[in-house]
Amino acid sequence: MFSVLPTPFTNAGDIDVDGLCRVVDFFVKAGVNGVTALGVTGEVARLNERERGIVLDTVLGRVNGRIPVVAGTTADGLRTCIEYSRHAQSAGASAVMVSPPRMPKLNTDAVLAHFSALSSAVEVEIVIQDYPPISGFSMEPLLLARIAREVPRARTIKLEDPPTPFKTSRILAQCDEIEVSVLGGLGGVFLLEELLAGASGVMTGFAYPEMLVDVVRLFKSGQIDEAADAFYRYVPLMRFEFQEGLGMSIRKEVLHRRGVLAEATIRPPGAMMGGSDRAALDLLLRWMRDKQRVSWT
Amino acid sequence: MFSVLPTPFTNAGDIDVDGLCRVVDFFVKAGVNGVTALGVTGEVARLNERERGIVLDTVLGRVNGRIPVVAGTTADGLRTCIEYSRHAQSAGASAVMVSPPRMPKLNTDAVLAHFSALSSAVEVEIVIQDYPPISGFSMEPLLLARIAREVPRARTIKLEDPPTPFKTSRILAQCDEIEVSVLGGLGGVFLLEELLAGASGVMTGFAYPEMLVDVVRLFKSGQIDEAADAFYRYVPLMRFEFQEGLGMSIRKEVLHRRGVLAEATIRPPGAMMGGSDRAALDLLLRWMRDKQRVSWT
Amino acid sequence: MFSVLPTPFTNAGDIDVDGLCRVVDFFVKAGVNGVTALGVTGEVARLNERERGIVLDTVLGRVNGRIPVVAGTTADGLRTCIEYSRHAQSAGASAVMVSPPRMPKLNTDAVLAHFSALSSAVEVEIVIQDYPPISGFSMEPLLLARIAREVPRARTIKLEDPPTPFKTSRILAQCDEIEVSVLGGLGGVFLLEELLAGASGVMTGFAYPEMLVDVVRLFKSGQIDEAADAFYRYVPLMRFEFQEGLGMSIRKEVLHRRGVLAEATIRPPGAMMGGSDRAALDLLLRWMRDKQRVSWT
Amino acid sequence: MFSVLPTPFTNAGDIDVDGLCRVVDFFVKAGVNGVTALGVTGEVARLNERERGIVLDTVLGRVNGRIPVVAGTTADGLRTCIEYSRHAQSAGASAVMVSPPRMPKLNTDAVLAHFSALSSAVEVEIVIQDYPPISGFSMEPLLLARIAREVPRARTIKLEDPPTPFKTSRILAQCDEIEVSVLGGLGGVFLLEELLAGASGVMTGFAYPEMLVDVVRLFKSGQIDEAADAFYRYVPLMRFEFQEGLGMSIRKEVLHRRGVLAEATIRPPGAMMGGSDRAALDLLLRWMRDKQRVSWT
Repeated sequence: MFSVLPTPFTNAGDIDVDGLCRVVDFFVKAGVNGVTALGVTGEVARLNERERGIVLDTVLGRVNGRIPVVAGTTADGLRTCIEYSRHAQSAGASAVMVSPPRMPKLNTDAVLAHFSALSSAVEVEIVIQDYPPISGFSMEPLLLARIAREVPRARTIKLEDPPTPFKTSRILAQCDEIEVSVLGGLGGVFLLEELLAGASGVMTGFAYPEMLVDVVRLFKSGQIDEAADAFYRYVPLMRFEFQEGLGMSIRKEVLHRRGVLAEATIRPPGAMMGGSDRAALDLLLRWMRDKQRVSWT
Repeated sequence: MFSVLPTPFTNAGDIDVDGLCRVVDFFVKAGVNGVTALGVTGEVARLNERERGIVLDTVLGRVNGRIPVVAGTTADGLRTCIEYSRHAQSAGASAVMVSPPRMPKLNTDAVLAHFSALSSAVEVEIVIQDYPPISGFSMEPLLLARIAREVPRARTIKLEDPPTPFKTSRILAQCDEIEVSVLGGLGGVFLLEELLAGASGVMTGFAYPEMLVDVVRLFKSGQIDEAADAFYRYVPLMRFEFQEGLGMSIRKEVLHRRGVLAEATIRPPGAMMGGSDRAALDLLLRWMRDKQRVSWT
Repeated sequence: MFSVLPTPFTNAGDIDVDGLCRVVDFFVKAGVNGVTALGVTGEVARLNERERGIVLDTVLGRVNGRIPVVAGTTADGLRTCIEYSRHAQSAGASAVMVSPPRMPKLNTDAVLAHFSALSSAVEVEIVIQDYPPISGFSMEPLLLARIAREVPRARTIKLEDPPTPFKTSRILAQCDEIEVSVLGGLGGVFLLEELLAGASGVMTGFAYPEMLVDVVRLFKSGQIDEAADAFYRYVPLMRFEFQEGLGMSIRKEVLHRRGVLAEATIRPPGAMMGGSDRAALDLLLRWMRDKQRVSWT
Repeated sequence: MFSVLPTPFTNAGDIDVDGLCRVVDFFVKAGVNGVTALGVTGEVARLNERERGIVLDTVLGRVNGRIPVVAGTTADGLRTCIEYSRHAQSAGASAVMVSPPRMPKLNTDAVLAHFSALSSAVEVEIVIQDYPPISGFSMEPLLLARIAREVPRARTIKLEDPPTPFKTSRILAQCDEIEVSVLGGLGGVFLLEELLAGASGVMTGFAYPEMLVDVVRLFKSGQIDEAADAFYRYVPLMRFEFQEGLGMSIRKEVLHRRGVLAEATIRPPGAMMGGSDRAALDLLLRWMRDKQRVSWT
């Protein structure tokens, strides 16, 4: 279970480095198996290059080897992607996470060539990020299997292309002779079903990592009914948080309420939750506490 | 609370007219306020025109005035849309549901003109279907408010453009001097939050309409906590059913298990749920029964 | 060289059957090798099913065996697509033209299954229409080659996915052991380059079919420079006509000016050319006549 | 007439600074009214931030005040966009060119807020880049007029959303009381028609800037027929160069043949023209020379 880390900002919009250390501590303490810096949840698209470096160095420094760190290094140009990836590697990241590059008329050959060239340039593992909104390109199971076959360094897939349980099955069916790891995504909303379909775990930014840890642990120990019970109780919250276009704002608000973030600030032009969204969150958290006996701190 | 009706097919793929009557009875008995024929859930894109007529006539005949019937009459050409709509009107439908037409370079003026011309040609209400995948066009709150203002017949919006609670608020904020009704969608997955944001109800195809009826009833009577408690317990199921690309297959499977449909057949090229999806459904329904004390028949 | 036929409408918007006969005569007289009814240029998306039948029967009746007729039979449901295709076959069409069905999460397996099932149901040739805006799905050369291999009836590809010359080469490179025909499209704007890349011909709706006939004839007889000279002189016109979102309006206006169509009416919500577009067309046609010595009638 | 500058790379893929100086000289000598650095034609998506700085400084230094320089400063985050824009301003750029930010669920309010905040942070003019592929968002004339009204610094629109002549008319119709400048784009392929529709000029990356200068000059001096004659003769070339997905490769090849670029290298994953594209280019350039008496150097 890997958590994608948010990037805390001050009210003025600057990176809150101390806050980022607290974020790291919070996720490590929650028992996650690893963390991912510079992912979509980290608002990476709204950081400049200097800030990318600050975030990665801070995370690696604070984690200090306790768990693996994956670094998002997606870029539209191969050269920049390699540069980011090599920097992440030498800074100590265990793996890089890369989406296909965004470009007009992208096709499977170009995607394969991209991952292949990247693989020749680095020595760490490559997590393939299958999140079509980034690149505008949907990678089919056949292509993912072809990459896994031709680029051995790239056999872990972070799946964000729904329906993820169904696609997990289809990917694994194409890969019977190769060891491929599929990590679920989508805010954890289909975690149980992804695991049932053969996923190895999950990599997402849900603000209650201990829940995901719980579900994965129960599932892996064969306690399927217990895993399911825990999961279903958490689903209302996961689903609420994972609203298209609002996810980051909700996540940061929740982490703020949990005392992890000093501020819930996101960078513009990100959309902020409105008044009725806050009322809905209040209601939901109260129910989690009163009916599901979940205490948050 | 309006239910969008599925179209039952025999194993050979023909319309099962008797089955459709049973479907109607099931939804009426569940206490819904109305039903919608020829929506996405009805696999309308895979019916020919003769079949459209059969479905609509069967539904109207079986409902027989007990509750209102909305007819989906979306078409890429205005003329065909008017023709479908007039036919629905004279057959007895209470309203028509229409998405913007699909065409290259569609724009707000063309959308407004489309609804305006349609409005001049019919006498029933027009439900605007805001489901961008149909037309490839996202209608902004400003446009929806402009349509409501200029086309008084078109003041009900079936919202399927996430985040729906947030968009509900934004639409209503644009319409303070006009009476606009927003109906939530997305399989009911955000029903509570849509209601909190000001939605009047919901129109969707969830296979457990009694749950939606329940939540709406409790909410409207001011029992917000009870509505929320009911809703959150149903969310795992709604979410599972509403999987992009698989929704119809799951819905029909569930209705089949509930004894409503003789067969879970969908028409190709619709995607069918796989083995692990079935296992996941088994687990979920067992939990609903054992832990949530929901008995299905 | 196949021409995709427009559907003439009266000012009131009805199909002008006599006009359609004149359209057929005009294109036959221009020397085209075949015509295509019910394509995008025929505004097929704005015809109802009865009208589809009228158009196809009129075209077949008027052509009366002089040249082959291809019928567009794309539908979102396989069953409807087969029904349309069988009707076209029994009415006398030489081939059907079919785009992948539009549906959420369409993938290569579903596309292959669609063409495969269609092939089993008909006995005429299938022209694969590779025009991504219809289905929202881009077919890669690898998939087109796979279809050609597994569905022998479907070895003609009408290409509308730019850059078409480049894609023609890539498709042919995948198909060396199979006979595949690629027909260029895009209003003829890249006809010469498509031929140079190995295309067998062109299928499009350009309002000056004699120009396309000319270019293809010169090219096939080895007079490349003459073909090029003719082509380049026509390009300004082709390019003007083939404007995204306005193409149909311009084509009909030109055919009206040429005396082929009584009216330039297109069906709403199609966009109509504006005042400055007309002035630009005047200027261009004058230049073609004065400088290129092209007389239009 | 503004030219968008390519970024020359060595065979090894590094920025060729001397080559960029030659590029600047070539375009200045061609008589353009200004140049744009860091646009799509400059492969800006494949430069890192340090390289952005090198390109901009080199261009500004070499132009040395002879003509205005526009700097592309689009970024997904407002903060980064402002940072890029302020840097461009202090380095001496006359204006910045900015596309709406790319983000899920982008809407008109967010676009307006983005340009408004940017405007408060800079003192140079803002050229709005209306090129939907960058942001995935199409700005309607109504929105562009609203921006022009509320953000006086942003009254120049570089239009790349076809049909551009038609859209030019629609934008100007919305802006009768405000002075708005529309600059055509699309590789110059519709330059004449854009001018006829009221465009003020053109900003594009066509490798024969002297042709565009010629057409604009003749048109502005009232010699419409001469402008048209020149334009139509150049159209075959413009159209060939402006092929979706291949444009950059062709442009650089042409500039290489013209002696402007030492190498035609583009950065991966950009697609390279194939053998038949080269043969087609040979044929076309020979025709331009022999039949149109265009000498290239």
